[in-house]
Amino acid sequence: MKSKITVLGLVGAMGLALASGQAVAQIAKNVAAKSPWGPADEIGTLNMMTDASRLDILKQVTGGKVYDLGVDLFIGMPTCCVPFGDPNFQIFMTHTPAQDTAKELLSYSGDGISLYTHTGTHLDTLNHFGLHGKIWNQVSSESALGVRGWTKSGADKYPPIIARGVLIDVAKSKNMSTLPTSYAITVADLQDAVRKQGTTLRSGDVVLIRTGAMTLWPDAAKYRLADQPGLSIEAAQWLVEGQKAMLIGADNFGIESFPSKDPENFVPVHTYLLAERGVSLLEAMWLEELSKDQVYEFLFIASPLKLRGGTASPLRPLAIPVQRK
Amino acid sequence: MKSKITVLGLVGAMGLALASGQAVAQIAKNVAAKSPWGPADEIGTLNMMTDASRLDILKQVTGGKVYDLGVDLFIGMPTCCVPFGDPNFQIFMTHTPAQDTAKELLSYSGDGISLYTHTGTHLDTLNHFGLHGKIWNQVSSESALGVRGWTKSGADKYPPIIARGVLIDVAKSKNMSTLPTSYAITVADLQDAVRKQGTTLRSGDVVLIRTGAMTLWPDAAKYRLADQPGLSIEAAQWLVEGQKAMLIGADNFGIESFPSKDPENFVPVHTYLLAERGVSLLEAMWLEELSKDQVYEFLFIASPLKLRGGTASPLRPLAIPVQRK
Amino acid sequence: MKSKITVLGLVGAMGLALASGQAVAQIAKNVAAKSPWGPADEIGTLNMMTDASRLDILKQVTGGKVYDLGVDLFIGMPTCCVPFGDPNFQIFMTHTPAQDTAKELLSYSGDGISLYTHTGTHLDTLNHFGLHGKIWNQVSSESALGVRGWTKSGADKYPPIIARGVLIDVAKSKNMSTLPTSYAITVADLQDAVRKQGTTLRSGDVVLIRTGAMTLWPDAAKYRLADQPGLSIEAAQWLVEGQKAMLIGADNFGIESFPSKDPENFVPVHTYLLAERGVSLLEAMWLEELSKDQVYEFLFIASPLKLRGGTASPLRPLAIPVQRK
Amino acid sequence: MKSKITVLGLVGAMGLALASGQAVAQIAKNVAAKSPWGPADEIGTLNMMTDASRLDILKQVTGGKVYDLGVDLFIGMPTCCVPFGDPNFQIFMTHTPAQDTAKELLSYSGDGISLYTHTGTHLDTLNHFGLHGKIWNQVSSESALGVRGWTKSGADKYPPIIARGVLIDVAKSKNMSTLPTSYAITVADLQDAVRKQGTTLRSGDVVLIRTGAMTLWPDAAKYRLADQPGLSIEAAQWLVEGQKAMLIGADNFGIESFPSKDPENFVPVHTYLLAERGVSLLEAMWLEELSKDQVYEFLFIASPLKLRGGTASPLRPLAIPVQRK
Repeated sequence: MKSKITVLGLVGAMGLALASGQAVAQIAKNVAAKSPWGPADEIGTLNMMTDASRLDILKQVTGGKVYDLGVDLFIGMPTCCVPFGDPNFQIFMTHTPAQDTAKELLSYSGDGISLYTHTGTHLDTLNHFGLHGKIWNQVSSESALGVRGWTKSGADKYPPIIARGVLIDVAKSKNMSTLPTSYAITVADLQDAVRKQGTTLRSGDVVLIRTGAMTLWPDAAKYRLADQPGLSIEAAQWLVEGQKAMLIGADNFGIESFPSKDPENFVPVHTYLLAERGVSLLEAMWLEELSKDQVYEFLFIASPLKLRGGTASPLRPLAIPVQRK
Repeated sequence: MKSKITVLGLVGAMGLALASGQAVAQIAKNVAAKSPWGPADEIGTLNMMTDASRLDILKQVTGGKVYDLGVDLFIGMPTCCVPFGDPNFQIFMTHTPAQDTAKELLSYSGDGISLYTHTGTHLDTLNHFGLHGKIWNQVSSESALGVRGWTKSGADKYPPIIARGVLIDVAKSKNMSTLPTSYAITVADLQDAVRKQGTTLRSGDVVLIRTGAMTLWPDAAKYRLADQPGLSIEAAQWLVEGQKAMLIGADNFGIESFPSKDPENFVPVHTYLLAERGVSLLEAMWLEELSKDQVYEFLFIASPLKLRGGTASPLRPLAIPVQRK
Repeated sequence: MKSKITVLGLVGAMGLALASGQAVAQIAKNVAAKSPWGPADEIGTLNMMTDASRLDILKQVTGGKVYDLGVDLFIGMPTCCVPFGDPNFQIFMTHTPAQDTAKELLSYSGDGISLYTHTGTHLDTLNHFGLHGKIWNQVSSESALGVRGWTKSGADKYPPIIARGVLIDVAKSKNMSTLPTSYAITVADLQDAVRKQGTTLRSGDVVLIRTGAMTLWPDAAKYRLADQPGLSIEAAQWLVEGQKAMLIGADNFGIESFPSKDPENFVPVHTYLLAERGVSLLEAMWLEELSKDQVYEFLFIASPLKLRGGTASPLRPLAIPVQRK
Repeated sequence: MKSKITVLGLVGAMGLALASGQAVAQIAKNVAAKSPWGPADEIGTLNMMTDASRLDILKQVTGGKVYDLGVDLFIGMPTCCVPFGDPNFQIFMTHTPAQDTAKELLSYSGDGISLYTHTGTHLDTLNHFGLHGKIWNQVSSESALGVRGWTKSGADKYPPIIARGVLIDVAKSKNMSTLPTSYAITVADLQDAVRKQGTTLRSGDVVLIRTGAMTLWPDAAKYRLADQPGLSIEAAQWLVEGQKAMLIGADNFGIESFPSKDPENFVPVHTYLLAERGVSLLEAMWLEELSKDQVYEFLFIASPLKLRGGTASPLRPLAIPVQRK
């Protein structure tokens, strides 16, 4: 069975480059890894959170202003994945009071929604992408793919996320409103931005990368996956292996630069982070106010919906500034 | 056009009592109220939150343990409203790696969901129920009901909720695992529980009522709306008018006792709180660990999805214990 | 991975009898069969249709009265499979003209639907049930189960059905409004009814069995799968192997008697017909007017939607009386 | 409340021309009409069908070859109305046998679908478009728009359609594979084609117009609503008022030429036919084999799903050649 990309004839549409992709080959092993947290682990680096780590960052809060890092969910909103056959966002009334006005006491409104779980601001869970049939912790589809979804590493297994958060504002560091089309952020880009900001990265951080993509939101013709700027695999490696980031987020659709340079893998940074390093992702983050106010360090709070088996959960993360260290 | 309840022939099924309902008549005015926060207000009592109120409760945190107040979302889960014609919860894979195992590098999983917005632990917004065609702040359906939903008081207008939270464990106070079928909690019940707990209620609190309903979860035959115990309208009035609660939540499906005693209104506490007092609701809250650990006062955090126009949002609230005052 | 039935804990709910089920064991081989129409066949006995067979029955039409054999699709309608985790029927407006009345020229209405494909009157395709991982014509899931569904024997492969139709009115033959709960129709029952009706069965017929279940429609508490009367496997064998029926339909949810007597197989008649004999099924047929008018032989017309990969299609079959032969 | 077109900011996208649209003004009255079939009528010209009319055409059948006039429904298929906020087509497995292979007797597959009702080959019902808040037969939304949809003129009210069908192959008549972008078919175009074909139009016909649009199917970038060729309002008038056609279909998405020349009405032929003349529509018809085989007169059979309240129904119409008269 061919992959959905091929099935939908989107190889061309995605413009998958046929370049060498040597860096990918060097960093990525292309094999799902065993978890250092043991055979039962389903959440990877989120195991870095402890009561002590949470209390530590909670204690550093200096004000009550809350930054809202989530986007609205609405009909016609940009979606990553309708070109891959996924459902567009729908909200529809199942009870409408329109006709009740004069005649009835009660005006009853209710509504349903349907959506791809990777819609709007969302968390990618570790079962979203695997390698050779195995997801993080070498869990195979044979053993853990049930009738209606994965029994391992679904959103229902995810804890609430309360941790130190850091913004790396690459677009601002480069004095750009948004990075160029398909630009792949380098390690040097991250180091420059961090230095200019005066920010220290610490083990266990939630690191949010600003590419400026949200300045294009919600223009669905411009805010799109196909040729977005994003992380290179080297930059992802530096964050995770070098800086010990716990969770990586970005303001674009898919964290990484598209199209992929690897003809065999249209999401090499995803598979490296999810399947090889156990790092979950946050996508389509709203970072504009943090950027404007130059808030680079904060209490980060996110609470994924416990969608049983879910490969993602829409959520609305929050940031509350802390003392800079 | 008759109400959906009548349309679906559920009056009998709901067992709407034809008792006098005099208390309702005395407390409820059955008219949507003007907001004291002005003609543009769409969120009612959530206006009580300020940077100062948030900082105050954040500063009281004493530990890093987080209580998860949300339930899993899964196929076959109890739902309030399938009997009213609403969709049941669905999660379905849109990309499955089952066949890729040996043949392909990439194992790609994705999924969609569809649900009634009032599914699992959720927030009811102020446009969920109105009176005589008007919701909170006297907003009429003529002026604010759009093609696909309300343009006022939808979940997209809701701020993140960070406030002092209080649990009132009525079931424990009465030494019951769950309150009796259709039991209507009285003011005295609340006062007794608060006194036994040694808890002080303060203006702006998120007050969570434990009926014990979640001890029946997820047995859909037992955890149901039709005859659940819950708040009486007097108890709701005492919390809101007397104690100045900002937000009321409970562990049952609909906050209030069912069936209603008002033959004209199957949800009199909803309409009183939402349309007359501007108080939003939290339903199907998981309060079991808080109860077990006797955590009665806490930092409460909830972040509704900004579903444009939504009459509700599923969410996963959190509680972090604070010093008792 | 356990079957969905077990997963959902419905073994008890379905009341699967643990009786011997010896007849099943003797008739059913419990192995998916090779098609006599060759390795490319995906539609089984529908290959019996030819231009000549269609013209023959079209030429016998004696009047222009049309019998409508489909039921309405509506919110709250009975569904076989919500207890198995499938979606309930939804129709929802995506454009509503309610507010346009006075202000705009155009009054625009549109709507979406979502449903389990086995909803209302529908055709079961040959990929709906297989045995040991193989469907009709020994097609394995390894070879033909794609990312989003089957690539073989889906509804998109089905031709329009134009054939001689025959009603066997078992309920009327037994002078019952509906057969008793869980009653298993015998070969003698079919023979008696056919004799009383004076009907001749012919090779290639669409045979519709009336159990009287539709006299309970649309009461979802009564019209249900769990304990419905229906065909025994011997009766199914007599129709297919003895009488060479091309297609079998009934007015109940699942053709056969429930619960199954085979503890290993909750749908033994389905697997016998679909996987072993290549006979597709028609379910939830509206046969009341045919019965009332004693129309036992007719031109049968049904046109399944070509849902790519679909395990079923909702449809609305028609019957037009012919000369009795 | 503004129309959805405006709400979605699609006026520009649709390229609504601001030309004079004088012909529209002369033919269309822009007022929903009373039905000549009485105040209870909900189906308009379909009242022209009788037992006699059906028998007459059934008796003319000369062969058993069936032409299938419906398209496949599949993920990624062209859709008219995703730009208007409607759901894209989805089919998703709710039971998958993938993991059952070796371990279990039963291989159980099931699936759900969700779609805009105007997807693939479909019928537009008379409640789809009205004028000034009233649909056909001057039914107002105040009186007939229920909580979940229209109570009048929904697909559930539609009879099966069995009638004489006629193809007018405009593209072939003009020796074009497809008519030019936005071309508006004239009365002379229809007359020329009919004359070349040697076809007689008769009162009560189902008239199918071939623009050649299906030669672009299923390329969603080319087969689209925005600038498709189709009927002018004069041509529609000639068919309905002149030739007494009962039902009009076409191989494009919306029967008529787009964009509309009327800045107040983006679908003037729809409103003329549906609201003023009571003529239902068939859209996205597959007419390629009829065209190739030069089959211009036939028994037409279509059986809309009885979607309660539905503004459309997907269906799969059939054509069987008859003696030419």
